[in-house]
Amino acid sequence: MDGAKTGKSFSQEYYHQPGTIPGTIIIHEDAQQPQIVLMDYNPTDLVERRIINPEECSDYLRTQSVSWVDVQGLGNGDVIHRLGQTFDLHPLILEDVVNMAERPKIEDYEEQLVIIARMVVPNTNNRSFYSEQVSLVLGPHYVLTIQEESEHDCFDSVRARINKNKGIIRREKSDYLAYSLLDAIIDGFFPVLELYGERIAELEEEVITNPTSETLKQIYQVKRELLQLRRGIWPQRDAISSLIRDGSHLISQEVSIYLRDCYDHAVQVLDMVENYRELVSGLMDVYMSAVSNKMNEIMKLLTVISSIFIPLTFVVGIYGMNFNTEKSPYNMPELNWYWGYPFCLGLMAVIAGSLMLFFWRRGWLTNSFEINQK
Amino acid sequence: MDGAKTGKSFSQEYYHQPGTIPGTIIIHEDAQQPQIVLMDYNPTDLVERRIINPEECSDYLRTQSVSWVDVQGLGNGDVIHRLGQTFDLHPLILEDVVNMAERPKIEDYEEQLVIIARMVVPNTNNRSFYSEQVSLVLGPHYVLTIQEESEHDCFDSVRARINKNKGIIRREKSDYLAYSLLDAIIDGFFPVLELYGERIAELEEEVITNPTSETLKQIYQVKRELLQLRRGIWPQRDAISSLIRDGSHLISQEVSIYLRDCYDHAVQVLDMVENYRELVSGLMDVYMSAVSNKMNEIMKLLTVISSIFIPLTFVVGIYGMNFNTEKSPYNMPELNWYWGYPFCLGLMAVIAGSLMLFFWRRGWLTNSFEINQK
Amino acid sequence: MDGAKTGKSFSQEYYHQPGTIPGTIIIHEDAQQPQIVLMDYNPTDLVERRIINPEECSDYLRTQSVSWVDVQGLGNGDVIHRLGQTFDLHPLILEDVVNMAERPKIEDYEEQLVIIARMVVPNTNNRSFYSEQVSLVLGPHYVLTIQEESEHDCFDSVRARINKNKGIIRREKSDYLAYSLLDAIIDGFFPVLELYGERIAELEEEVITNPTSETLKQIYQVKRELLQLRRGIWPQRDAISSLIRDGSHLISQEVSIYLRDCYDHAVQVLDMVENYRELVSGLMDVYMSAVSNKMNEIMKLLTVISSIFIPLTFVVGIYGMNFNTEKSPYNMPELNWYWGYPFCLGLMAVIAGSLMLFFWRRGWLTNSFEINQK
Amino acid sequence: MDGAKTGKSFSQEYYHQPGTIPGTIIIHEDAQQPQIVLMDYNPTDLVERRIINPEECSDYLRTQSVSWVDVQGLGNGDVIHRLGQTFDLHPLILEDVVNMAERPKIEDYEEQLVIIARMVVPNTNNRSFYSEQVSLVLGPHYVLTIQEESEHDCFDSVRARINKNKGIIRREKSDYLAYSLLDAIIDGFFPVLELYGERIAELEEEVITNPTSETLKQIYQVKRELLQLRRGIWPQRDAISSLIRDGSHLISQEVSIYLRDCYDHAVQVLDMVENYRELVSGLMDVYMSAVSNKMNEIMKLLTVISSIFIPLTFVVGIYGMNFNTEKSPYNMPELNWYWGYPFCLGLMAVIAGSLMLFFWRRGWLTNSFEINQK
Amino acid sequence: MDGAKTGKSFSQEYYHQPGTIPGTIIIHEDAQQPQIVLMDYNPTDLVERRIINPEECSDYLRTQSVSWVDVQGLGNGDVIHRLGQTFDLHPLILEDVVNMAERPKIEDYEEQLVIIARMVVPNTNNRSFYSEQVSLVLGPHYVLTIQEESEHDCFDSVRARINKNKGIIRREKSDYLAYSLLDAIIDGFFPVLELYGERIAELEEEVITNPTSETLKQIYQVKRELLQLRRGIWPQRDAISSLIRDGSHLISQEVSIYLRDCYDHAVQVLDMVENYRELVSGLMDVYMSAVSNKMNEIMKLLTVISSIFIPLTFVVGIYGMNFNTEKSPYNMPELNWYWGYPFCLGLMAVIAGSLMLFFWRRGWLTNSFEINQK
Repeated sequence: MDGAKTGKSFSQEYYHQPGTIPGTIIIHEDAQQPQIVLMDYNPTDLVERRIINPEECSDYLRTQSVSWVDVQGLGNGDVIHRLGQTFDLHPLILEDVVNMAERPKIEDYEEQLVIIARMVVPNTNNRSFYSEQVSLVLGPHYVLTIQEESEHDCFDSVRARINKNKGIIRREKSDYLAYSLLDAIIDGFFPVLELYGERIAELEEEVITNPTSETLKQIYQVKRELLQLRRGIWPQRDAISSLIRDGSHLISQEVSIYLRDCYDHAVQVLDMVENYRELVSGLMDVYMSAVSNKMNEIMKLLTVISSIFIPLTFVVGIYGMNFNTEKSPYNMPELNWYWGYPFCLGLMAVIAGSLMLFFWRRGWLTNSFEINQK
Repeated sequence: MDGAKTGKSFSQEYYHQPGTIPGTIIIHEDAQQPQIVLMDYNPTDLVERRIINPEECSDYLRTQSVSWVDVQGLGNGDVIHRLGQTFDLHPLILEDVVNMAERPKIEDYEEQLVIIARMVVPNTNNRSFYSEQVSLVLGPHYVLTIQEESEHDCFDSVRARINKNKGIIRREKSDYLAYSLLDAIIDGFFPVLELYGERIAELEEEVITNPTSETLKQIYQVKRELLQLRRGIWPQRDAISSLIRDGSHLISQEVSIYLRDCYDHAVQVLDMVENYRELVSGLMDVYMSAVSNKMNEIMKLLTVISSIFIPLTFVVGIYGMNFNTEKSPYNMPELNWYWGYPFCLGLMAVIAGSLMLFFWRRGWLTNSFEINQK
Repeated sequence: MDGAKTGKSFSQEYYHQPGTIPGTIIIHEDAQQPQIVLMDYNPTDLVERRIINPEECSDYLRTQSVSWVDVQGLGNGDVIHRLGQTFDLHPLILEDVVNMAERPKIEDYEEQLVIIARMVVPNTNNRSFYSEQVSLVLGPHYVLTIQEESEHDCFDSVRARINKNKGIIRREKSDYLAYSLLDAIIDGFFPVLELYGERIAELEEEVITNPTSETLKQIYQVKRELLQLRRGIWPQRDAISSLIRDGSHLISQEVSIYLRDCYDHAVQVLDMVENYRELVSGLMDVYMSAVSNKMNEIMKLLTVISSIFIPLTFVVGIYGMNFNTEKSPYNMPELNWYWGYPFCLGLMAVIAGSLMLFFWRRGWLTNSFEINQK
Repeated sequence: MDGAKTGKSFSQEYYHQPGTIPGTIIIHEDAQQPQIVLMDYNPTDLVERRIINPEECSDYLRTQSVSWVDVQGLGNGDVIHRLGQTFDLHPLILEDVVNMAERPKIEDYEEQLVIIARMVVPNTNNRSFYSEQVSLVLGPHYVLTIQEESEHDCFDSVRARINKNKGIIRREKSDYLAYSLLDAIIDGFFPVLELYGERIAELEEEVITNPTSETLKQIYQVKRELLQLRRGIWPQRDAISSLIRDGSHLISQEVSIYLRDCYDHAVQVLDMVENYRELVSGLMDVYMSAVSNKMNEIMKLLTVISSIFIPLTFVVGIYGMNFNTEKSPYNMPELNWYWGYPFCLGLMAVIAGSLMLFFWRRGWLTNSFEINQK
Repeated sequence: MDGAKTGKSFSQEYYHQPGTIPGTIIIHEDAQQPQIVLMDYNPTDLVERRIINPEECSDYLRTQSVSWVDVQGLGNGDVIHRLGQTFDLHPLILEDVVNMAERPKIEDYEEQLVIIARMVVPNTNNRSFYSEQVSLVLGPHYVLTIQEESEHDCFDSVRARINKNKGIIRREKSDYLAYSLLDAIIDGFFPVLELYGERIAELEEEVITNPTSETLKQIYQVKRELLQLRRGIWPQRDAISSLIRDGSHLISQEVSIYLRDCYDHAVQVLDMVENYRELVSGLMDVYMSAVSNKMNEIMKLLTVISSIFIPLTFVVGIYGMNFNTEKSPYNMPELNWYWGYPFCLGLMAVIAGSLMLFFWRRGWLTNSFEINQK
């Protein structure tokens, strides 16, 4: 059992090292080198370029156009540090961003709104999912997003909408961009849930017809992964809820309506996860019952066969005794009867027949011989 | 296991496609072509007509009489779009209305109150239910209802009351109409619950007397479907509750009292669903225990038969040994006794009798031979 | 399994018929004809008479003395309707009163306080309970109570106190009367709980010593009925709690202190129901374990008997083989030994003895032969 | 199973008799005659005397010194009644005090604070606990405590502190005395919990090594008794919490700090009870699993013995057949072989050896023969 | 089973002795002698010295520099008492500090903030953890920490940061020091959780492949220890949360932001503990199912072997009967057939073959002979 492997990390793996100074940036060895892409747009113009030095962003941040700086990979402490300076991030923000196992949350630092979110992407190989921390920093005219690595991404649709100027995104401010990105992250849970919906449907089929220990393993696996999904979406929902409730001067009234929609989706995801968890836990009960059921069938078969043949074996045992028929007329006279053997066979046929009738009326015969055919 | 199939959709099926622009209207291929029916009434007059172009409604909306526009089927994006324009709907409303897997909710858009509800209709074929999303938009003088398809409907009673001018509906405003429709939706859960009450009663009977793997399947099925029912009614209750608490300028004080009644019914539905869920989960435990019980009976039968015949077979085995009686007076002299065979039969009768007495006093004999008769 | 049958109705049975006009009075066919009794009292005088026409009450309602109108039976729509007019009841109140499956609640209609309560009465026949809806309407100088039928009643003690002028009831107003009636309803749960306390104690005894499928059925039955009790008392507690919190101009400060006492009793009833539910659900686990335990004992017996006799049967089988002793000195020379048979018997005694010693040291012998004696 | 027997009463036993007039004092037949002890102290003086007539207290109540009137035993309605008059108690207080199955609560009657508490004392005989209702009435200069009986008491330490003038108790007012008594009641739960800690530790040991039906009984028993403990402490915690939150003019700021400490202890007791409940419910699962495990071992032993001897018995059966070797060279020529018998024995040794190897490699041999040794 | 042993104490062990005077200091016999270390620092200077008499601290407390007095060991009542006087602690604080089984909490005594926390340290010997109470008293210019013993400590990292002047700690006030220490305590849970993550992963592996009673014991053990961890972290989270919400004049706005981070970590720890608890409780179900599964395999093997050999043994039994072939042509003529024996062997081969085919088609053969290989 190896759980839902994640792009690079999942909370079990990177713990807070106790004793680190608050605000310390720890670079994990296997972390990817950062790639920075900047998109700067207004309703009419669009700049999209690859950035090497974080400082290059400074000019764009000063303009009124919306700047989206997307960082993928956390493998270079120096770059991260300079990013922090360019965007004037609080040391604790930087620590949270780099620590890849943070709990999703939204923190309001007056001039910046920091969203630590968790993104999931279906993993079709093992029918599980990749999970990755995404940090959004929303400022007056910019959005900074920081992802753990560049392979998996759920922002393509937003990029496309900016590039092709679809919808209202190019006409709106940075708050709408932040909303769009958050919405893309939340909506990214649906395909993963669909996968689990399928897996559960298959397990439902399997658990009644042919419960094996592989089924059991799968049920536990799904249960475990749903637990991880819940840990990903639950705090996200809470965070959006408190953002809507408390508001922020960085988010306009209009975008707030959109956030409500985003919140609805988060609630729906959570609902479905809880639903699936109930189904899976019901499946575990069904599994237990189905295994017991199967045991009953096995025992019935054993009982039928034993019950029929043990008395017969007793009968043939009797006529295999060596009492001396010559010493007494009472000593097994049957052995010398003319119809002795046919009588004996007949007796056994009657015994076997009665027992089979007994079992047949209980419905055991049909059941026992049809195990697994169902 | 195929769960409670729904009219056209249930949330497992249509997910939010991640990456769609907020406010996008997605038309599902198998969606039905929309049919629009308008009812416009005041205490004295009533107009009922089939509408082709949504724009035809505009005239009615401007009058003081109550207009109810009922749309059945979502299969035409153009019509939906023009509906949105005619009723001046926010793009997010339109998206929610068309997305057939929304979570029930009530949203207050100043000049409009949008109710996304879920309607259920008993499906007598498989003793389950159809489920369908119904959206209500309440405006000053109109109610717009949008249903997924035209086959199942729980609004007939309201139509009849308008047509036949029964009750106070014709004298009241659009808020009373909206209440009546919502009430019809909530009350529609009762016949479905009745169905499940019956199914549970049958399973209760079956689970003790004759627990088969079909019973197990049924229990899980009912559990699963009750989960769906709960997902349908729970948010509906919350929504009505918050509507009553927060109020809305579109809903008069008088209708608010009626809504309280409607809320009571929603609570009652939820109560019953939770009750049934507890019963079903109790049934699963009973099932497990009943299966184990049955196993005990099977094992008792096997044990009784084995325990009686195995010692007897041992005895007949002894007298089947070929020790040479001529070599020694100690070599199985019984074989040459005059009463040897009768003595042996008697011995076996005593053994069998004692064992049967032993089992009879434990009550195993009666039990074992009466399995399934209970 | 037929659950706790109720006087006339319990919520599983009478659902809201979807599509009925709000405020409609539906008379169930098997409902009893109403009997109306009026008590009108002040500290000095008391009138008690049987009423035929509801309108007869009008005169009494106008006086300052307290009038208690007790209606038993809902089988006459006309009488109910006129009652509604006499007491000036809102159509929704009347609907709730007549619909015998309402959820207990307290509603404040300015000039009237409506209490929908559920009364239980022990049913000693099947050691379960009758359940019946009781509606109380508290007005300035009167209390109207409406019960489903006249057979079961928990108001006798209140009637006696009025008749015999015991306690302070005759000196108090209608709010104290309403409190007394509500208190009688709540206190009516205690004898029912006592019954369940006894049933659970018996099941506890039975489940360890002799768990049968009847025990299982009983456990489930009790669980089911406790669920019904909880559905009866829970909303009642909530309703009283909110009445105390919000107050009502119909209830004096003094009676409010008494209501607090009544609330305490409701909480205590709920506590005990929850307690019993936990005990019963623990009993289900004990049942499962006890059945498994018993299976172990059965299997031990089978194993002991099989393990002792199967090897012995093998030994006697050996000396039943027909190898020709004359062809070779190696062919079963034991058969021709002088001490062959005694040696063989001795060998078997040793084998049987060792095995019995083996099982005895495991404690299986004593266990197996003492099943059910415990 | 007889649950945790209590000094005199526990809620299962004395129910509110429905129909009693509110404020009625019901004397249980087996209740003890009241013994009244008065302590009246100030920093310098102390009076301790036995009281016969409640009226004797009146003089002390008027002084500024703190009077503690401790009543043990509720068996005399007249004395109780006069107590009520002496202390000017509301009829409902008196009813609660006398009804020995009240739910713990704190009620503020302006000039008096009434605390209904539940005291527990370890019962070392059956390793359970006695439980008894204690009522405290706190007035300006006095505390009245009423206990069900005189045998068990947890106030000795407080008496000693007053007698020996230890700590600050003699310098403080009646509110500090009330706190000290309440604290003694709460702290009295710890020794009881310690007992259950020990019982659980023993059951943990037993459930893995040797699960018998006695173990099962014990687990259920502990579960049941913890439920009773929880019922005792839960409302007590809530009551203290609301007292701290709402305050009372009878309790000084300083004593309020001490009450916070008392609240902490109540929370800790509840925490531990909940903890134990979780452990016990885990134990039930372990029990089930351990029983199943044991069954597996039994079945393995049966399977090993059957599987080895059944084929051997078949082999010896073959050579016990009576085919006439003289009629044909194909008819069991082995019987006449020179090495026939040794060959047959060898064949069986090989069969037995292979089977034992088969089982040994599965680890069944060691397991089966070591059951219960663990 | 001996649970997670702790450094010196864990709540099961030291209960509040009922009857002790509030504020009493109880010294446990096996408590360690106190060692006191004082660190006094400002941005430029640092004093670190070992203290013998608590009074030596007084001078440092009066200065503006931050003083950290760390006491390890509670074995000397006199020293504790003088500490209390030096720092002017409320008797109840002192009692809580010395009582090693307090529930974590934060109390605000105007001029002092008292934090009772619980520290955990991984115990690599038995893969469990040590647990120890740590009390922090935050005053205007000092922090007093009191630990149960000196062996285990999670403050080394903080000491190092002060000594080496790393981070901002030397520039900040005592509130930042208190935060740093609390943060070190919370972060100390992560390595312990990592340990449990590993243990659970191993159990997951073991429970499917080879469930033994040792596995069961381990699962229960982990469950039990997670319960203890939860009891340690839960109240800590609540306490920090209420500290952030209510604020304290001893904690600056800036440090409050850091506390928020600390709270996030506490939430994350609790999240993970709850997660692990769900996994472990899932494992218990898996265990049960896996044991039942294994039983099925055992029973299948027994059934296969019995079902094949019992009929064969019956057949050989038939031809071992001694019917006198000379008395009648019907008496077992097969014995005298020329091909009798080969026919008999063939018959048995056919029977065995059919049965094996029957079982092979059910997949029992492969299953049964591959148990434990998986």
